[in-house]
Formats: sequence, C-alpha cells, structure tokens
Amino acid sequence: MKRLGILGGNQVAQMTVQAAISFGIDTAILERFADSPASRLTQYSVIGDWTDAAALGEFAKMCDVITLENEFVDAWGLALLEGRGLSVYPSSETLTLTQDKFWQKNRLEAEHISLPAFRAVETPDDVIAVGEAFGWPLVLKARRDGHDGYGNVILQKPTDIHAAWTQLVRRNGRKLMVEQFISFAAELAVIVVRGRDGIICTYPVVETIQRDHICHIVRAPAQISSDIAQRAAAIARTAVEAVNGVGVFGVELFLLHDGTLLFNEMAPRPHNAGHFTIEGCVTSQFENHIRAVMGWPLGATEMIAPAAVMVNLLGTREGIVHPESVHHALSVPAAHIHFYGKRVVDFGRKMGHVTVLGATLEEAETVALHAANWVDL
Amino acid sequence: MKRLGILGGNQVAQMTVQAAISFGIDTAILERFADSPASRLTQYSVIGDWTDAAALGEFAKMCDVITLENEFVDAWGLALLEGRGLSVYPSSETLTLTQDKFWQKNRLEAEHISLPAFRAVETPDDVIAVGEAFGWPLVLKARRDGHDGYGNVILQKPTDIHAAWTQLVRRNGRKLMVEQFISFAAELAVIVVRGRDGIICTYPVVETIQRDHICHIVRAPAQISSDIAQRAAAIARTAVEAVNGVGVFGVELFLLHDGTLLFNEMAPRPHNAGHFTIEGCVTSQFENHIRAVMGWPLGATEMIAPAAVMVNLLGTREGIVHPESVHHALSVPAAHIHFYGKRVVDFGRKMGHVTVLGATLEEAETVALHAANWVDL
Repeated sequence: MKRLGILGGNQVAQMTVQAAISFGIDTAILERFADSPASRLTQYSVIGDWTDAAALGEFAKMCDVITLENEFVDAWGLALLEGRGLSVYPSSETLTLTQDKFWQKNRLEAEHISLPAFRAVETPDDVIAVGEAFGWPLVLKARRDGHDGYGNVILQKPTDIHAAWTQLVRRNGRKLMVEQFISFAAELAVIVVRGRDGIICTYPVVETIQRDHICHIVRAPAQISSDIAQRAAAIARTAVEAVNGVGVFGVELFLLHDGTLLFNEMAPRPHNAGHFTIEGCVTSQFENHIRAVMGWPLGATEMIAPAAVMVNLLGTREGIVHPESVHHALSVPAAHIHFYGKRVVDFGRKMGHVTVLGATLEEAETVALHAANWVDL
Repeated sequence: MKRLGILGGNQVAQMTVQAAISFGIDTAILERFADSPASRLTQYSVIGDWTDAAALGEFAKMCDVITLENEFVDAWGLALLEGRGLSVYPSSETLTLTQDKFWQKNRLEAEHISLPAFRAVETPDDVIAVGEAFGWPLVLKARRDGHDGYGNVILQKPTDIHAAWTQLVRRNGRKLMVEQFISFAAELAVIVVRGRDGIICTYPVVETIQRDHICHIVRAPAQISSDIAQRAAAIARTAVEAVNGVGVFGVELFLLHDGTLLFNEMAPRPHNAGHFTIEGCVTSQFENHIRAVMGWPLGATEMIAPAAVMVNLLGTREGIVHPESVHHALSVPAAHIHFYGKRVVDFGRKMGHVTVLGATLEEAETVALHAANWVDL
C-alpha cells in the first residue's frame, strides 16, 4: 500500500487523514510542532521545519506520494521532494505560481480572468503612487503566508500606510502588494478538484461570511442565479488549470452589486469553504483530494441535501482546551460537530466547526448557529 | 482530553477511530498482532493478548475510557480494567451476559423474548437427546467466539453429530449448545445504542443477506410492515437493556413466514449490519458508540436517504493485498468505498465494504453490487 505524506499537521491534514482511512491508505505527517492533531493519527511522524532539508529527506523516505495542508510550505521544499522521485501534488511549479499572491494574480490576469487592480510595492512611497493611480481606499497585502486576515490591511488614506507597512513587514516579511479595494455584494467560493489526468470537477458555489476577516459561516449553495454560479465555476476551473493544479483548490471570488465576478485569491489545498462537503456532498473535498493526488478517479461533487451551513468554532480566549467544551452542543439534533483536538485555544483560532444540512439555508443556519453557541471556547 | 482505549485493532476499531477524529478524541489500541489497521492510527498502541494481565495493565495506564471491537475479549479482562478505576463500556457484567450465547439466551428468555429453543450440551449424546426433544434438523453452536458462521454447524440427522462436534471443539473449545433449526422468511438486524444514562435509540431495521454464513448484503430499511419493524425494535431494545448494555449493539432476528420474530443473537459492539450508517444516517453507529461510552448525548439515528445498501468486500484468495484493488470501483459514481487496509487477504475475509444510497433499495443494490464487482480481491 502506498503511503501518503502530508506537509502540515493541523485540521486540514487531520481531516485528510480521516478520509484516507476509508481507503486503508497509510499517512505520514511532517509538522513543525510536536503533538499536532494529524501527527497523533500516524506512526510515521517527523517533527521539523518544512524548510529543513534534513527533515524533508527523512520524511521523503517514508512516503510515496506527498501533498500539503497549507501553502506556507516552500516551493523549493517540494522541488527537493520531486527530485527524490516522489509524486508531489500540488507540484513545486503549481506552488510557485500560487503561494505568492502577486505571481498568482499575474498568472491569472494572463488568462484574462477579471480581478481587482493590483501592483507589487517595495516601499511606502510606492503605495502612495498606487493610490494616485487606483484611488483610495486600498488594500495592502503580504504577498505570502497571510491567512485569516493576518496578511491584509485596508488603507483609507495615505497616512494609514506607515503603521500598516510596519505591521505587515514584521509579520510577513518585505514582499508586499497593493490592491484596489472592492465593495462587494457577497464573497463566494468554489472548491475545485483536478486529477492527475486533468479531469476537473467543481463543487456547488458557496457564499462565505467573514467576521473580523476570518471565515465565520459558509452557506451552500450560494443564493445566486445559475448564470452567476456557472460563471463562478468557470473562473475557478480556469484558475486551477492556469497553475496546472492537481488536488483540491479553494477559489475565492467577489460578487459585485452589478453581477460582475472578480477573482480574489485561491489556495492550493482543501479549504475552509469546503468543510461542509464532509456531510453535505456525495464525496467530501478531503476524499476527492486524496483521489486526485493518488491518481484515482474523482468522486461525485453533488450535494445530498438542498442546503448545508457550516459555522466555524473560533477561540474566544487564551488557554488550555477543556475536553467538555463540545458536550452541550452534541445535544443539538442533526448538528455535525467537528472538534480539531488542538490542545491550546487562542482568540480567533479555528478550534472546530459545525455543519448542518437542511431543507433551506435559513433552517440549517439557525440550527448550526444554535449548536455553535453551545460550544464553550 | 480523555483518551479512549479500544480492545481490538481491526475494521470496527478502525472505523471507531475514524469517527473519534471528528471529536478530537485520542485513541489507544490493544491488539494481539502488530500492524493492525487501527493501531496504525495512534501513537498509543500495545501489542499483546487480551488475556495478558501485563498487556492490559500497560494499556490501562494510557486510557480513561475503554471499549472493545469484538466480544472475544474476556470478561475478566474488562473486570481487571474496571478494578483499576477505568470507565469500561460495555462493562464486564454486560460482556459476561453476552459473550456466552447460552447465558445470553438464558438472560433474554427470562425477559420473555421469543427465541428458538436451545439447550447446552456437554457430550454428543446430549445432542441426540435434544434431537429427540426438538426434532431435526438442529444447529450445533459454539457458545463463545464464533463469528461469520465459523461457530455453527447444521445437523440434518444424528450421524452428522460426530464430525460437527469434532470441528467445533477443535476451533472453539468444549462449550457447545444446540438450537432448534429455524426456517425463516428473512434475517433482520437492529443496531441499538444505549447511553450511560440509559437513554436508548434504535436505527432503522435492516435486512441482512448471508452468503456461506457471512454477511453479504445489508438492505436499509428492511422491506417489512411498520408493525414488524416496531416489534423488532422493541425486542432489540429489551435485549440490550436486559444485559445493561452501554454503547452500540447489533441485534440479529429471524422473521418467520407468519410474521413471528425470534431473537437470534446479539453482539456488544458496532456491527457489520450497521456499516451503512456511516453515509446512510445522520449519526453513524461509530459516532454514536463513542458518544455512548463517553457519556455524551446520543445523535439522531434517522436515515438521510430513502434507501441504503451495503455490500461486503470478501477475499476470494490467499495472499498479499494489491493497493490497486479498489481503483476501478472508485469510478462508479456514488459508491462509497471502504477498504480496511488489511495487508493480507484470505478466502471470505472481510476486506472492505461498499455503501450506496438511493431512491429505492433496488437502485442502490444494483450500483453497490456493480461497484463491488469491480473490486479485485
């Protein structure tokens, strides 16, 4: 039996391992920190940095196929694994084109995908020049390693630049970019899966509701016209094909008030906007990710209920996780509780999620929020 | 976070661990053989016999709550774990009343549950005496440790006794019993889950189709009248309450041509007849087993589709498992493939299963059998 290695050991890796169990596939985990949720589920665990050639080498010996759970892994690390003859999906080429948002958007602009105006910046003065060209407000973004809003700051006016620049450089390094600020009607997401053979499928388009820049609620399917849904799916497919992606990708889009769709960004891995697929679709995003990276046929992506709503369980304090946190929420009928087994909670940290299926989005969302409110984080 | 220990490391343990991941619960496995499917999913694995006090002692140190995946574990082993202050479900008392089929039936007869006439036998001559009382044919059964038909032999006439007696004693030891042979219209099964607090739920009654005494197909729900379904569920609940069971139990029943229901036997663990619940019900039998033994609220047991059919994937040869065995079956849309990750295949060995949901049993069964036929075992 082939062993599947995953770079990263948090919840996306954990849910990928959970799906791999159905196929009897062995997994291995490389994660920076000991006792990660996914590393507990294997006897093949390496603790080390994804930029540590020795750790990568040790990991390579355990694996036949390698994938990742986040895009903070360095493309050169994937290239090193490819050089040892391993099957690596997404490939180092795909990760290179994806993990730097400036390069990602350059690549997609070349495919004529509509997206907010953007420009790389090297100094605060460059931002002032962009503001004169695009107008204000602007979004200052880290080109790499941003997540859950930690890589983005909205600039209302030139005097906002200094603090934002300092904050992002401290956290994410010197590579920044600026984008036109978009006033959207809704944020949409499309989970795409593409096989090694290039066969590509999309899941139903969903609406994502952010709170404090972190995904809070996902509504599946999004309440949009079939024309918009088809255009969103087409953009998402084109984007994944443009980077020759293999595996699952989460593609985020802005829906404007006039019906225009703009590409926002994509992540080369199973995505928070696709967690609802575990109970909500014939084949979950995690199972399809495994099928894709193993070179197996993809599974059906249709929903199995008219509506599904996912609510993230976010930390509201700093400290140790209490085992009984989810106890009360388990009393809510039909609420599917996922609790990631993280040992420590922090403000805004993703600790779990709840998914509820229903006849309507309203019904499912009411139950999901009710269950989420019973979780004491 | 509490750690859940499971005695046994095969597919039932594996699917229990898979369900435990959704709650972030750590698991530990005690299994006789190294490299069992479930032991690969934890860093807390003890290899040793369930009758080895030292192995049980080592295991006890790792765990807070203990359950089992098969009834071949000895009740005294559970009592030893209880004596160390662990929460053990099913309890040693329940296992004592359940794992010996003669004691099990004695207990249920006392609750006025209808079941085939039975009698313990100590010598072949005892069987002849039972034949004179009950008439022929008879079923000679091992009182313990039988599974998948390996503990039963049908006796058509007195001259069949000698060979059957020798075979069963060699395989299962000297404790045998005899039962009246039942000519049934159908075999039914009810998955029951009972919490620590005594709250009890049943899953929809299913029909099981055996082939060579091994479960081949499970049809959910069974095509029976609601009166029969209600009586079957009531018998199953009474049976589990009669042994003070906590956790999931699989209760098997005979449906006679006149509508009579007879209790056949029950197993104190998640059951092959309940594997369809993974995709087919709001809460799977494995998730509900965890909820029950942890002392948490039980989840809803309703089906999420009009029909579900499960087909077992049984070995058809002796040898090493080929990783590509399930590859073709993955092309069948809507077939949920489970492959248990056993390294070695044997004739009749349970290697995996396929579940398909559908609008009708016929539709689901056609697709499930089609997918199963594509698996090369």
